[in-house]
Amino acid sequence: MTERTPAPVSRRALLTGGALTVGGALAGAAAVAAVRRDAAGPAPVSSTVDYGLQVVPFHGEHQAGIETPAQAHAAFVALTLGAGVDREALGRLMRLLTDDAARLTQGTAALADGQPELAAVPARLTVTFGFGPGLFDAAGLAAKRPESLQQLPPFGIDKLQPQWCGGDLLLQICADDPVTVAHAQRMLVKDARAFAAVRWVQRGFRRGRGMQDDGVTQRNILGQVDGTANPQPGTDVFAGAVWTDDGPQWLHGGTTLVLRRIRAELETWDAADTVGKEFAVGRRLSDGAPLTGRTEHDPLDLQAKNANGFPVISEFSHAARAHVLSDRQRIFRRPYNYDEAPAADGTADAGLIFAAYQRDIARQFLPIQRNLAEADLLNDWITPIGSAVFAVPPGCAAGGWIGQGLLG
Amino acid sequence: MTERTPAPVSRRALLTGGALTVGGALAGAAAVAAVRRDAAGPAPVSSTVDYGLQVVPFHGEHQAGIETPAQAHAAFVALTLGAGVDREALGRLMRLLTDDAARLTQGTAALADGQPELAAVPARLTVTFGFGPGLFDAAGLAAKRPESLQQLPPFGIDKLQPQWCGGDLLLQICADDPVTVAHAQRMLVKDARAFAAVRWVQRGFRRGRGMQDDGVTQRNILGQVDGTANPQPGTDVFAGAVWTDDGPQWLHGGTTLVLRRIRAELETWDAADTVGKEFAVGRRLSDGAPLTGRTEHDPLDLQAKNANGFPVISEFSHAARAHVLSDRQRIFRRPYNYDEAPAADGTADAGLIFAAYQRDIARQFLPIQRNLAEADLLNDWITPIGSAVFAVPPGCAAGGWIGQGLLG
Repeated sequence: MTERTPAPVSRRALLTGGALTVGGALAGAAAVAAVRRDAAGPAPVSSTVDYGLQVVPFHGEHQAGIETPAQAHAAFVALTLGAGVDREALGRLMRLLTDDAARLTQGTAALADGQPELAAVPARLTVTFGFGPGLFDAAGLAAKRPESLQQLPPFGIDKLQPQWCGGDLLLQICADDPVTVAHAQRMLVKDARAFAAVRWVQRGFRRGRGMQDDGVTQRNILGQVDGTANPQPGTDVFAGAVWTDDGPQWLHGGTTLVLRRIRAELETWDAADTVGKEFAVGRRLSDGAPLTGRTEHDPLDLQAKNANGFPVISEFSHAARAHVLSDRQRIFRRPYNYDEAPAADGTADAGLIFAAYQRDIARQFLPIQRNLAEADLLNDWITPIGSAVFAVPPGCAAGGWIGQGLLG
Repeated sequence: MTERTPAPVSRRALLTGGALTVGGALAGAAAVAAVRRDAAGPAPVSSTVDYGLQVVPFHGEHQAGIETPAQAHAAFVALTLGAGVDREALGRLMRLLTDDAARLTQGTAALADGQPELAAVPARLTVTFGFGPGLFDAAGLAAKRPESLQQLPPFGIDKLQPQWCGGDLLLQICADDPVTVAHAQRMLVKDARAFAAVRWVQRGFRRGRGMQDDGVTQRNILGQVDGTANPQPGTDVFAGAVWTDDGPQWLHGGTTLVLRRIRAELETWDAADTVGKEFAVGRRLSDGAPLTGRTEHDPLDLQAKNANGFPVISEFSHAARAHVLSDRQRIFRRPYNYDEAPAADGTADAGLIFAAYQRDIARQFLPIQRNLAEADLLNDWITPIGSAVFAVPPGCAAGGWIGQGLLG
């Protein structure tokens, strides 16, 4: 679906190798040629790009960073509240964090910014706050905790490691630029250090901005097209699946987040053949289309049979197990890849930071997860090693602060 | 120096928020506004961008990844050769690695690629190989080791940690996209696993592609403009400083790399005031200009005195200590930032993966480093914690392989 709008070739595009013809002046230095994917059309040229200066509004009905098209980089930072941090202290902390998040996301330095120059490239920075179960106890507000906000029940496929589990307060920091994420993380962790300890940090990445067309469903580190069945941001289906409008009043306009760290078993995945992988997933690896369809967004046909009378899409495939019948049961996934240093023998330590938003964990995430844990063929190649849940308060207007409806 | 070439506003730019005016259709979803930096000019718009499809030639006189304008992401992977891996085995390993590097950098899957679809976004991928001192012993070629290729002498400022030091074989993997780096790293580590163990991996990042103008000197994680004094790629000065044309014949057209992991002491750096920081650096933080100049690229004036008769740029400042008088003494720096998870109390674990290329470590890097270690005011805020050196063979033609002149 690329539109290849002809654009003037700027001097800068020439200098940076974005133009098709690379002149002799660049020989040996910045020689860059375009891969020709489409022999019929001209190779695209780069024009002036301002990805670094783009900002996402901070204030609004909902927190940014959920419906926002996923940025290239994310840091999920979970904090453990210090002893004695009560409702009043939490209010001060959230005022401080809200204030600096509002500044940084708009390209302005934080209040006590040690590197103010690094704030000048917001790159669609969003900061999204989440409240873990423990925060409600600390604030003396256990009665206001959403009923389904509790540590998930254990699943047979889990091999949870405590260092990736839990958390009282979540900072989800996303931007298209990794320096921007690092700087925002540093500023916000500094704000929080008098109130809380860093419990874990999970850094994740997706395809960079401008690396492929923005509308393309991304592939995860297993090579799978991942996210096809997501409700589309901006639609009523999305709103109905994600934004809470029942339960505790303070959470209306907010949502809940299930964050799972899911290790990819790349050693055995690499050893499997394409037919086996596609049978397990229920979709083609090449383009993500269901085995019963022709293109990525074709609906699953779970009734279709092959010549032997067996279902084309196995009932034990990942696509079939994750399939839901009602829009209100859907979850919105906004995952990032992780890739830590491999072991000495080369074994990968990579996988998915699986972030799923839904209005109600008990009615949306849990039934799907039970289906998957029970009999998903993909389970041979994925292992949940971390798990946390957070209530994500609604957004705030200028002058307000995130969590005010609960803590204020 | 941005040229703001007017470009047609494409449908895609509108959808992705690249356009100035964000319509109601996007309300609540992808609303993105441009930060206005230049009130006089129009805000830039994004046109079709093909950063993901850009390729850097693999074959050539020199290995790519040195003179190549630095990509946004890097993985430096150091390997320790297995017992019994001799010259013949090293030849097989380097043929294998060269072959897959040539494929992957051109957007083609590796020979035994488990996720071939991930190879389709080369994003200026380069793979650069380096040979550590131990490789020469393993190959029975100690006589062909460049004389100055040896573990650096200890410096008073060093606090080296063994897990970040040494290595027999280096894979330097750089691309503008983090998924591309992860995939290439996985494929190359798989190639090497029968021959060598992973010793360490250092992941680094710079500003993303398209986040700011390509020609801008980047700021490091301390907020400093870093790299102003670099020789310019493509010039005779660069060639004279970087590409070896004496010593062992096999290294002609190659270079040597000093890789240091330098921790930034952000806690105390943040506590210092701007005057103190600028005095230590010898340059202004705001724009990187020397304290005696007006713009970033003005030469240092080490003779200029202030009203009290003291040098404006202290002889103990970083800029003065790193200053060299001859072009042949210069080094070419191609650094990346690192930022690991902070400690529980919020203390950062961040800094610089300092990569310096020069024809001769003894005559270029070492004198500068001695000057710095002796009396650089910046030493209070930077601590070398890792150190490694590698000879970087010249490039190869199609059909050849990297290191053939030594191992073939």
